[in-house]
Amino acid sequence: MPTVRVEMFEGRDREVKQKLATEITQLMIKTVGCTQDSVQVVFTDISKENWAMGGELAVTKFPD
Amino acid sequence: MPTVRVEMFEGRDREVKQKLATEITQLMIKTVGCTQDSVQVVFTDISKENWAMGGELAVTKFPD
Amino acid sequence: MPTVRVEMFEGRDREVKQKLATEITQLMIKTVGCTQDSVQVVFTDISKENWAMGGELAVTKFPD
Amino acid sequence: MPTVRVEMFEGRDREVKQKLATEITQLMIKTVGCTQDSVQVVFTDISKENWAMGGELAVTKFPD
Amino acid sequence: MPTVRVEMFEGRDREVKQKLATEITQLMIKTVGCTQDSVQVVFTDISKENWAMGGELAVTKFPD
Amino acid sequence: MPTVRVEMFEGRDREVKQKLATEITQLMIKTVGCTQDSVQVVFTDISKENWAMGGELAVTKFPD
Repeated sequence: MPTVRVEMFEGRDREVKQKLATEITQLMIKTVGCTQDSVQVVFTDISKENWAMGGELAVTKFPD
Repeated sequence: MPTVRVEMFEGRDREVKQKLATEITQLMIKTVGCTQDSVQVVFTDISKENWAMGGELAVTKFPD
Repeated sequence: MPTVRVEMFEGRDREVKQKLATEITQLMIKTVGCTQDSVQVVFTDISKENWAMGGELAVTKFPD
Repeated sequence: MPTVRVEMFEGRDREVKQKLATEITQLMIKTVGCTQDSVQVVFTDISKENWAMGGELAVTKFPD
Repeated sequence: MPTVRVEMFEGRDREVKQKLATEITQLMIKTVGCTQDSVQVVFTDISKENWAMGGELAVTKFPD
Repeated sequence: MPTVRVEMFEGRDREVKQKLATEITQLMIKTVGCTQDSVQVVFTDISKENWAMGGELAVTKFPD
């Protein structure tokens, strides 16, 4: 039943997300002892205009 | 003051969301005893690339 | 390490978000005593179709 | 796959939560067309010291 | 309608939370132009066992 | 800057959480290419009274 939420900057493609989902699911099975079907992984893509560290928007701090 | 968050696959239209909002709000009033104005319902549309069950992205598991 | 999440209607521009990030970060430093670098502020833009108050979607309740 | 999160003041007992879970799950099946097993409902109990409306903590605004 | 969520280490008292709620609410009114009654602030207290930075639990990284 | 949130049933000890934090952080560095210091992992312990699957509270479905 674990749900793992991954918040990261937008722009990662489907292949990266599938890899993260596979590895996080295996990690939860191995470490927590849950079944494979019970694990959910949800990705939240966050734009650089919507995330600030140390008071500065990432769009300014980490321009492309 | 209850806030109810509904995370579901993107693609549901406004009519479905209004129906859910109406029924969830009535349910909270009836069951929890709060006032109508205090209930908030927030929808989060999640793409099939952003949700994995059992380690597999929904875009692969449930192709359209 | 505080993380502050601001959920509001979509449509606010980068300048408003930078102002909120600056002021929230200063407030956390002053009030909680954390370092500037440890504060994160994340914005979630919510459409008026995705937020209901009192059982009514905001897109109906507050049309533009 | 829908996940519904209910944030409300702490203090509701198991019977109330079971009733909400039952009705929300039935509502999602009927309205969204998902299967029963795919619906998850998660409750978050929030103390009155941790929720403010209009700038005032609920513990002050709504004392027991 | 803005909702602001503040996640921080547990241990801050009611006075600190009231101060944060007051200032965040005023900031939202001033910057976003919403009404006072529409602003909600929710605090989430997180224990040092439940927050890791750089791969290390805060309970180890920042012992009391 | 990624933040990974792990929601699971309460009862896992510090050792399990540290192991999850270590492995998730390494996975993010390797897969997403972020720095170690930028990764945060937050655990949310959920009681069996607060999580329902298929309309049934886990406290009933999975009694200890």
